[in-house]
Amino acid sequence: MQLSTATWQEVEAYLKHARGLIIPIGSHEQHGPNGHLGTDAICPEVIAAEAGLEDGILIAPTFNVGQAQHHMGFPGTITLRPSTMLAALQDWISSFTRHGFTRLYFLNGHGGNVATIQAAFSEAYAPWSLKGEAAPFACTLQNWWELRGVADLCKRLFPVGDGSHATASEVSVTYYKYPDFQKRVDMSPKIAPTGPIRDAADYRRRFPDGRIGSDPSQASVEAGAELVAAAKAALIADARRFFGEND
Amino acid sequence: MQLSTATWQEVEAYLKHARGLIIPIGSHEQHGPNGHLGTDAICPEVIAAEAGLEDGILIAPTFNVGQAQHHMGFPGTITLRPSTMLAALQDWISSFTRHGFTRLYFLNGHGGNVATIQAAFSEAYAPWSLKGEAAPFACTLQNWWELRGVADLCKRLFPVGDGSHATASEVSVTYYKYPDFQKRVDMSPKIAPTGPIRDAADYRRRFPDGRIGSDPSQASVEAGAELVAAAKAALIADARRFFGEND
Amino acid sequence: MQLSTATWQEVEAYLKHARGLIIPIGSHEQHGPNGHLGTDAICPEVIAAEAGLEDGILIAPTFNVGQAQHHMGFPGTITLRPSTMLAALQDWISSFTRHGFTRLYFLNGHGGNVATIQAAFSEAYAPWSLKGEAAPFACTLQNWWELRGVADLCKRLFPVGDGSHATASEVSVTYYKYPDFQKRVDMSPKIAPTGPIRDAADYRRRFPDGRIGSDPSQASVEAGAELVAAAKAALIADARRFFGEND
Amino acid sequence: MQLSTATWQEVEAYLKHARGLIIPIGSHEQHGPNGHLGTDAICPEVIAAEAGLEDGILIAPTFNVGQAQHHMGFPGTITLRPSTMLAALQDWISSFTRHGFTRLYFLNGHGGNVATIQAAFSEAYAPWSLKGEAAPFACTLQNWWELRGVADLCKRLFPVGDGSHATASEVSVTYYKYPDFQKRVDMSPKIAPTGPIRDAADYRRRFPDGRIGSDPSQASVEAGAELVAAAKAALIADARRFFGEND
Amino acid sequence: MQLSTATWQEVEAYLKHARGLIIPIGSHEQHGPNGHLGTDAICPEVIAAEAGLEDGILIAPTFNVGQAQHHMGFPGTITLRPSTMLAALQDWISSFTRHGFTRLYFLNGHGGNVATIQAAFSEAYAPWSLKGEAAPFACTLQNWWELRGVADLCKRLFPVGDGSHATASEVSVTYYKYPDFQKRVDMSPKIAPTGPIRDAADYRRRFPDGRIGSDPSQASVEAGAELVAAAKAALIADARRFFGEND
Amino acid sequence: MQLSTATWQEVEAYLKHARGLIIPIGSHEQHGPNGHLGTDAICPEVIAAEAGLEDGILIAPTFNVGQAQHHMGFPGTITLRPSTMLAALQDWISSFTRHGFTRLYFLNGHGGNVATIQAAFSEAYAPWSLKGEAAPFACTLQNWWELRGVADLCKRLFPVGDGSHATASEVSVTYYKYPDFQKRVDMSPKIAPTGPIRDAADYRRRFPDGRIGSDPSQASVEAGAELVAAAKAALIADARRFFGEND
Repeated sequence: MQLSTATWQEVEAYLKHARGLIIPIGSHEQHGPNGHLGTDAICPEVIAAEAGLEDGILIAPTFNVGQAQHHMGFPGTITLRPSTMLAALQDWISSFTRHGFTRLYFLNGHGGNVATIQAAFSEAYAPWSLKGEAAPFACTLQNWWELRGVADLCKRLFPVGDGSHATASEVSVTYYKYPDFQKRVDMSPKIAPTGPIRDAADYRRRFPDGRIGSDPSQASVEAGAELVAAAKAALIADARRFFGEND
Repeated sequence: MQLSTATWQEVEAYLKHARGLIIPIGSHEQHGPNGHLGTDAICPEVIAAEAGLEDGILIAPTFNVGQAQHHMGFPGTITLRPSTMLAALQDWISSFTRHGFTRLYFLNGHGGNVATIQAAFSEAYAPWSLKGEAAPFACTLQNWWELRGVADLCKRLFPVGDGSHATASEVSVTYYKYPDFQKRVDMSPKIAPTGPIRDAADYRRRFPDGRIGSDPSQASVEAGAELVAAAKAALIADARRFFGEND
Repeated sequence: MQLSTATWQEVEAYLKHARGLIIPIGSHEQHGPNGHLGTDAICPEVIAAEAGLEDGILIAPTFNVGQAQHHMGFPGTITLRPSTMLAALQDWISSFTRHGFTRLYFLNGHGGNVATIQAAFSEAYAPWSLKGEAAPFACTLQNWWELRGVADLCKRLFPVGDGSHATASEVSVTYYKYPDFQKRVDMSPKIAPTGPIRDAADYRRRFPDGRIGSDPSQASVEAGAELVAAAKAALIADARRFFGEND
Repeated sequence: MQLSTATWQEVEAYLKHARGLIIPIGSHEQHGPNGHLGTDAICPEVIAAEAGLEDGILIAPTFNVGQAQHHMGFPGTITLRPSTMLAALQDWISSFTRHGFTRLYFLNGHGGNVATIQAAFSEAYAPWSLKGEAAPFACTLQNWWELRGVADLCKRLFPVGDGSHATASEVSVTYYKYPDFQKRVDMSPKIAPTGPIRDAADYRRRFPDGRIGSDPSQASVEAGAELVAAAKAALIADARRFFGEND
Repeated sequence: MQLSTATWQEVEAYLKHARGLIIPIGSHEQHGPNGHLGTDAICPEVIAAEAGLEDGILIAPTFNVGQAQHHMGFPGTITLRPSTMLAALQDWISSFTRHGFTRLYFLNGHGGNVATIQAAFSEAYAPWSLKGEAAPFACTLQNWWELRGVADLCKRLFPVGDGSHATASEVSVTYYKYPDFQKRVDMSPKIAPTGPIRDAADYRRRFPDGRIGSDPSQASVEAGAELVAAAKAALIADARRFFGEND
Repeated sequence: MQLSTATWQEVEAYLKHARGLIIPIGSHEQHGPNGHLGTDAICPEVIAAEAGLEDGILIAPTFNVGQAQHHMGFPGTITLRPSTMLAALQDWISSFTRHGFTRLYFLNGHGGNVATIQAAFSEAYAPWSLKGEAAPFACTLQNWWELRGVADLCKRLFPVGDGSHATASEVSVTYYKYPDFQKRVDMSPKIAPTGPIRDAADYRRRFPDGRIGSDPSQASVEAGAELVAAAKAALIADARRFFGEND
């Protein structure tokens, strides 16, 4: 069930028997010559939506802009400063826990978000830890490409040049969702360079077209379909395990 | 054009001839017995999307969670504190202006956002005003239901009980977008009460099912279609005027 | 009763039978060629003081500097950033509610404050709404020029050129209070232009002498006296209604 | 000259030949059985106003609520948290320096403000110090009771029981300004106890009627007049010295 | 060279030929029955100090309290909230870059710091990325136990029960530094359990004596000496590589 | 007992019979031609350590970087902005009080910290004062050079040129601790000038080698030993008095 198209009474009914929620979290940032700026929001959104449809888990709206300062050298990128993202996530978490959700599962689409999301969890726990009370909720972070079986599938689908930013895999997932927005672009070099990530000017100098280590011209709707199917199944299993934790 | 499904090169090309951007901004909060929690995000998103399709204006991703503290008594509502929303909007505005957008048009779907958005504009101008330099951008806020002609249409479509929260109009727009998620609910009382808006407990006591002054059981896909068509046309005209301002 | 010249025991006694408080809130910012920089603080302060004298309502000290970034192009203007004003109002509200005041009536003298004050109310309610408890106080905002009957009186006194900034009305109120500080200046143009409000440089370009839509050379002590008398009576009635609210 | 009743053109003219400004800064907090809640704002305001009248120095509006958390056990007290006061003072300082004031003289009326004001100066200098540029302004803090000659006068006027909070001296200054608001109260004990200042509950326990070390029943209009005259003269001399500093 | 015992002229001289700096960063938090509360500060401090002595690299004072909210259930633990740590690291980074350091190498002793430190780097880069200028510095984070060769040595020294918190390795390093503060405690169970890390109450329930997966009773001065020697050598090599980076 | 080298069980045992804690707090900033950058952290650290050794009082790790914006003109100085230091001290105080420490004694080594530390105490008390509950802790600040008898000793040891920054006394204490890091430098002028403290550029212009009013070439290990002995004894007495306070 999508929270966006549910009524409050439907959420109230859901909370009678369940306490878990999946929150897709992404970014809007350049994804190379043929990838969508919304890639990192679209991927977890699509996978979560299909899981919600199949399993009935409640899916929150997507936290759609994240920490992407290093991509600011490319038009269209939007970023939150980490301190802002920390504050925004506190409010999302407080809102959910106030309604009685106790298991918050963040399905992430952007590597650059990981540190700030984990810091945000600590920020959320800290007031409870400082007053010596048990926090009435638990958060977990899962990158969709690290769901069980997905990395292997990526490797099988794109043995060469899946890469680490603007990957063939993530572009495939967006093509699966938006087949009309596929872009055919020759990549040069075929496989993008790799290196450390720092500020935006440094990034643009190292990675002139935005990709890191990838050849996303391999992306296809079919690969996207396979990836979504695999990720969906793994997500349902993983979320169910997390929601059902007794300890 | 949707920023989400564009590449950075497409945004770069857009910026060669245009400097304006529409940002849908909404909320996730209860909308009474038959309205979606995402109503206030969906409405500006749908209207902006159709305007972008027809006119080619670039449409940003939706700022989809806003200031909704007063709705927290109803499950599923998500809120930012105003201070957090102020910070988040600074980052969105800074991101856009860094790329060279100079006219930021916020199409709003939620009355509870208005004060904080306007405060956010002042917050964004303040550093320039304090250093004595001209701000290299201008922001404007437009509620979709106040676009030219839309209020008249609402009144014509729903002469009685359009109301001010969970309105027949806004529910119609969401039904137009998501016809499979229409909910048929008898309203009791037929038309909801009105009153001041304060904290969540006060709100829930005054407005037990969440509506204010409305009878949204009148909502229909057809009314939604009419509203979106009217709002789209007015939005294109208004945004073009704002983007074209010389002074 | 003025809080400033009361003792704590007098406030304690007041709280035995009353829970309401009026807080004048204004700004220090340019008010055109013949208006005082303190106009927006002086107006609500004077009106509230007379109401307090006549009726016995407790009047807080004036929150005398507000959100005026757009006036920073004119020497003498002082501004808070909206985020700072949000924080400061939290502390004022917390201080009053800690003593047992439950009805906080902000009498405002500056249009540019409105958004931030309203956002501040939401910020004050939010912690209660997020923890699911009723807020033990209610806030309301009233612009003095929108008190019942005042707008009509302004129109009658100044049928042409009352305007929207550095109005003939507000300058009259300050002249009533400080007759020795009247300034006689020829206005050129007679009636100032109108337009949108953005950053300070833009403002100064649009409104070179600071006025918007007004001809404040019409201001007079007599008009001020009439305005204060009307506003005082309306304020007492409105504040009493708000303080006496049961729901 | 009072900034409040000046026009922006008058401030512009002032800045043609002067760069200094006096900012009265106080507090609203209990001042014992016969002292006004506004004492600490009134004292520097009155002294500065007379200095401005005699000498022509520009006087800013009063920063009228300060750091008074320890007095919150007494009704009517208003406090800013130090972090809020730090932020508010940044905005005041930024506003003044943007107009070209380079010497900001804070005349303080409240001991509890001292630490936060001094921290605020460091906060204001820090961005310049961190970027390696000279700050284009200097701030100074002066408690009115430490102006040259004033402490001696206090001692002469009230050899016993001037005290350190709700002093006979400061109450005298307010009585001089507001003779109609003198309160005659027998003090018990005659001279209040002394001790450390911590949180509000601790304060109220140690100092049940709010005074520290004082017998303010000695306060008089005449003593106030003498104090204001002495402080005014010393203030003019001290401010002139500070404004004229070349190094 | 230790910055703490250097003069400013010595640092000035250092900056004539070098631009890199090592900053030990740790935590003060429980480390099980026989580990010091300062373990995570001591380890990087000791390793960096020996590297500084051997190689002449400048070593900053230790950032000695970090993000440890999950350990708050154990007396003596001190934590910063992530938002505070983010702010503090900005000031450290700003201070160093203002002096001309361009390569900041953070040698970390605490897993719980990693997310917040990485978020802090993004926070430091963000202003540059948002204004479109190259950041004049680069930061890197290195956990001492992940320095080249160290993990292998840990495994060789403690093939069973090195664990992940209060490890035999880290306790050994502190024993090497403070041999007089070795504590001999029987561990029960011999090897501590493992599990996820959330708030402090949850942590204490899962890990009653504070350890995770470790048997630190194996710790010894000799093992510490070996670890420090290996880590020191790897640190010099890694820091030199980072400082010498041209790209 | 040093918290750093204690286990959590040892702190738990300490808390069974004691509630007081000493926190050394300093700075890293230039200390003239022959003083260490860490002087202000080293001095309270050394004195507290010896007191802890002799008396058994628990000594926290040193808060080692403070407010030193005015020294940023000299390489090696590190500063926190006052707002950051306020936040960091809140977290330290919250951590200690959560464990049951009720008497927090800050032994300070840096005059520039005083205002911010005192503001931080008010910030820590404020939430309690605003909710009307007694704060469950008390804080005190003591500069080591103002411990009973120490100022007299300084005067006796260095009758001329002890000064107020980079004093002969404080340099002596660091030489006592680190005799190998004594620096012999001829001072020119022999005794440094004095003046006000503002931003860093102003400071460097007034005090070219960093000293204020001092001739630290007089510093010696022997003087340091005397000073530490005197300060240690006074610290134990003063802390014991503070810890034992009943009121």
